[in-house]
Amino acid sequence: MDGRARFVTGTDFFDAKGAISIADIAALTSARVVADGRDCGDAAIVGVASVDEAHPGELTFYDNRRYAGALALCRATACFLREADLRFLPHNVIGLVTERPQQAMALAMAELYPEAMAPASLFGGAGVSPSALVHPEARLEPGVVVDPGASIGPFAEIGSDTVIGSHAVIGPHVKIGRGCRIGPHVSVTHAFIGNRVIIHAGARLGQDGFGFTPVSKGYLKTPQLARVIVQDDVEIGANTTIDRGALRDTVVGQGSKIDNLVQIGHNVTVGRGCVIAAQAGIAGSCEIGDFVQIGGQAAIAGHIVIGEGAGVAAKAGVMRDIPAFSRYGGAPARPLRRFLRGEALLTRLSRRISDKNDKKN
Amino acid sequence: MDGRARFVTGTDFFDAKGAISIADIAALTSARVVADGRDCGDAAIVGVASVDEAHPGELTFYDNRRYAGALALCRATACFLREADLRFLPHNVIGLVTERPQQAMALAMAELYPEAMAPASLFGGAGVSPSALVHPEARLEPGVVVDPGASIGPFAEIGSDTVIGSHAVIGPHVKIGRGCRIGPHVSVTHAFIGNRVIIHAGARLGQDGFGFTPVSKGYLKTPQLARVIVQDDVEIGANTTIDRGALRDTVVGQGSKIDNLVQIGHNVTVGRGCVIAAQAGIAGSCEIGDFVQIGGQAAIAGHIVIGEGAGVAAKAGVMRDIPAFSRYGGAPARPLRRFLRGEALLTRLSRRISDKNDKKN
Amino acid sequence: MDGRARFVTGTDFFDAKGAISIADIAALTSARVVADGRDCGDAAIVGVASVDEAHPGELTFYDNRRYAGALALCRATACFLREADLRFLPHNVIGLVTERPQQAMALAMAELYPEAMAPASLFGGAGVSPSALVHPEARLEPGVVVDPGASIGPFAEIGSDTVIGSHAVIGPHVKIGRGCRIGPHVSVTHAFIGNRVIIHAGARLGQDGFGFTPVSKGYLKTPQLARVIVQDDVEIGANTTIDRGALRDTVVGQGSKIDNLVQIGHNVTVGRGCVIAAQAGIAGSCEIGDFVQIGGQAAIAGHIVIGEGAGVAAKAGVMRDIPAFSRYGGAPARPLRRFLRGEALLTRLSRRISDKNDKKN
Repeated sequence: MDGRARFVTGTDFFDAKGAISIADIAALTSARVVADGRDCGDAAIVGVASVDEAHPGELTFYDNRRYAGALALCRATACFLREADLRFLPHNVIGLVTERPQQAMALAMAELYPEAMAPASLFGGAGVSPSALVHPEARLEPGVVVDPGASIGPFAEIGSDTVIGSHAVIGPHVKIGRGCRIGPHVSVTHAFIGNRVIIHAGARLGQDGFGFTPVSKGYLKTPQLARVIVQDDVEIGANTTIDRGALRDTVVGQGSKIDNLVQIGHNVTVGRGCVIAAQAGIAGSCEIGDFVQIGGQAAIAGHIVIGEGAGVAAKAGVMRDIPAFSRYGGAPARPLRRFLRGEALLTRLSRRISDKNDKKN
Repeated sequence: MDGRARFVTGTDFFDAKGAISIADIAALTSARVVADGRDCGDAAIVGVASVDEAHPGELTFYDNRRYAGALALCRATACFLREADLRFLPHNVIGLVTERPQQAMALAMAELYPEAMAPASLFGGAGVSPSALVHPEARLEPGVVVDPGASIGPFAEIGSDTVIGSHAVIGPHVKIGRGCRIGPHVSVTHAFIGNRVIIHAGARLGQDGFGFTPVSKGYLKTPQLARVIVQDDVEIGANTTIDRGALRDTVVGQGSKIDNLVQIGHNVTVGRGCVIAAQAGIAGSCEIGDFVQIGGQAAIAGHIVIGEGAGVAAKAGVMRDIPAFSRYGGAPARPLRRFLRGEALLTRLSRRISDKNDKKN
Repeated sequence: MDGRARFVTGTDFFDAKGAISIADIAALTSARVVADGRDCGDAAIVGVASVDEAHPGELTFYDNRRYAGALALCRATACFLREADLRFLPHNVIGLVTERPQQAMALAMAELYPEAMAPASLFGGAGVSPSALVHPEARLEPGVVVDPGASIGPFAEIGSDTVIGSHAVIGPHVKIGRGCRIGPHVSVTHAFIGNRVIIHAGARLGQDGFGFTPVSKGYLKTPQLARVIVQDDVEIGANTTIDRGALRDTVVGQGSKIDNLVQIGHNVTVGRGCVIAAQAGIAGSCEIGDFVQIGGQAAIAGHIVIGEGAGVAAKAGVMRDIPAFSRYGGAPARPLRRFLRGEALLTRLSRRISDKNDKKN
């Protein structure tokens, strides 16, 4: 595929903050240095890359057998990997042995590229852009950055060091905490947002929930009177939609991470530390416990309760409550082991029948 | 979950229009008042809340056994509920007996919070914001509100009492009726929109349908020449996409309600009074009859006809026509009863096999 | 359905560039003219319509038995159709016989409506709108059109004849090629875009991928340092999201067509000439070969490799690699034939059991 472009260290969109020694990286990540007699005291890391694309001077990691071929040809200066994989490491690469190569890599990247830890103003701005539309009765703490074209309504309150992206719309009376990053084209209404929250481009928070009652002539809209509450350290993906509640607030708990194009219905409570993958949907009035993981394109029916620490597989369709710390899959969802057993059985039976048919013919 | 914030009556984003007596609420909803000897002539309702969060002075409703515990502790002044549930109502709460508690609650909420029946201008505006970008050849009837930063193209026509949200984009020659609410960041092109239509933030109406013909070198784009027609009283969710037709208009019928992140392909006709839940997808050239209900994340393949009053379960994958008034589920979709029977069978078989395996071991 | 509006030739949003003779249309599409003795040398086509809605003077096509009734009543001047369907053509319509009626129709439409082959400026603009927010250090080639309210950041580069839609946001250092159409409300950051690329309204390119590492207190964000690379002639649907890579670029190959509301995760490579239908999701680090077709609402798990020319059915859930030129369906996905056989088996078994139950009762 000729389109695969190589990531060149320190160009284009991010610069490493400077060189960092192997010893410092090892200390940061509690990795053990395996240098095969090389004196790596002077070896410095100036960038990062994937195992197949790294150049000398760069740091990489290896934790997936898919890339074993690439490891054999690796040209990086150093590589995080597990003890058991050391024997595959070429002699030109310094090993950084750890049981969690990907986590160690993330720590090193965070150290080398601190400015990539949160989206920045796209316009290099400081303060409020002259083309932003800030209502005179909005209240911005010092250090707020408002990019060109953003609209901020009356009585909205924005905490210090928060960046409001280009063309974002912040509704009246909305409160946004400190150190947040509100992406371009985001709309936030009827919502209170905590500190250090990241909301990516085009996410929609606070619009009316989907509530209608059949009446003689069509449907009566149910007023949606409550709010969206987003706690500290939440991250919300691009074009994700979170409706405000009817009577009960829609809540996203502290530290939860939500991917792109996710739907969260009205009155839903998402606990703390949850991870919700792309295109998942949570219907109205669900209660999702703390540290629940929900796979991509999974759907949770209305009023479902999912216990703490439970896991919902990608594409699952959950129609009953799920107990804490259990894993469910399939649609309708059942315990993951039972779901996979059923699928295996079906495959076996249909193979047998097709064998019979083949013999007959 | 400490994040569950309580909705406090009349604060934040909506104010009740004033107190309303129990007698008036009963008359409005045809509910029977059960006051156990209390003189409720003076009891007034000043707000609404969920059954577990209501305070004295507030109205609530009960229709789901999940909340039986909360009902026992309820502090509301009055509660809509069914006859059969009256025995669970605490003595401090006035009963409002009705067969449809949720519908009655919606009617009461609509009466108490009329301003929540349609999204308002987020900037408290009247008329056209000075920062809106209205083409001199666009035609706005009196009473149109255009929020900051909205763009309206040449020859567009907007009916009276319609609100165009902040940063919405209305393309050239588009017609929008009266009393509509076009949310922030909505784009509408190549479309005619009826009266009292609500379109939530980030919805996309009228872009090219997805039509390509394989030719010797890749794909030839098929020109998409027709329009999107949205009839009166339709509501369209946030970030939903409705493509315009190629030769035949894409139509959403009168009074239909479409949730967030729904995809409606080119040339599709959606009938009147349909309800389409979040993340459902309807491929090109489908004909969806009147009063069809489509569950969340359901998918309808191209050119499918769904009869009037049919129901498609959440996550269904419809690959054949569905007769009127029937219910389908599963992927590929089959009559709902047969689908559920198949799933039950699979569970039973796989359990039996796993029991055998357990005995062998 | 009273809402079905008729498309009237040359009104509303597109005008045909002028009349074109039957002979020229036949030559363009290599169709054989069947005129039953009529002299069609003078018959001119001035517009196009669907088979049931066409008027005299218009061209249509027929390739789906669903519309056989409409064909019998067709009033078009000419109709593309297959040899075998000629016998159903009414005598008032000139037949244009071809093995690929839809492809021929697309070619004729492209000839008659050249301006519909790519979205135009919605504001009839030329050059940079005075209300666009173009950073002084952005570099625009001659012939770039920037619609009202668009924001272009510092050091962005835009090629000639590209249109930047209203309220689009182009981030710093982004490069966009020539002849592109960037729709309203699109955001593009950390990305390089080729030539003749069409991006529809609300698509999000280049935001952070979804990468987190569990640490003692919650999750550590993994910096997303790479880019989105979109090659020439790609089309991307409305509200689709394409995340930038962490270490490896996210790439969409030459000529690929992506529908609305699709999610493409970080580090994904999509090959050349792929077609990805609406609401499909591709998780991080997948490698999708050239000319792969992915159905609506399909999901591909992380790190999956899909071989060249493979097909993934709508709603499939792919959890293992797929070989080149094979077709997969179901969730978890298996070879399409095996999937359909399993579904048929399940239906048969559950029918048999329900028959037994009926006899017992």
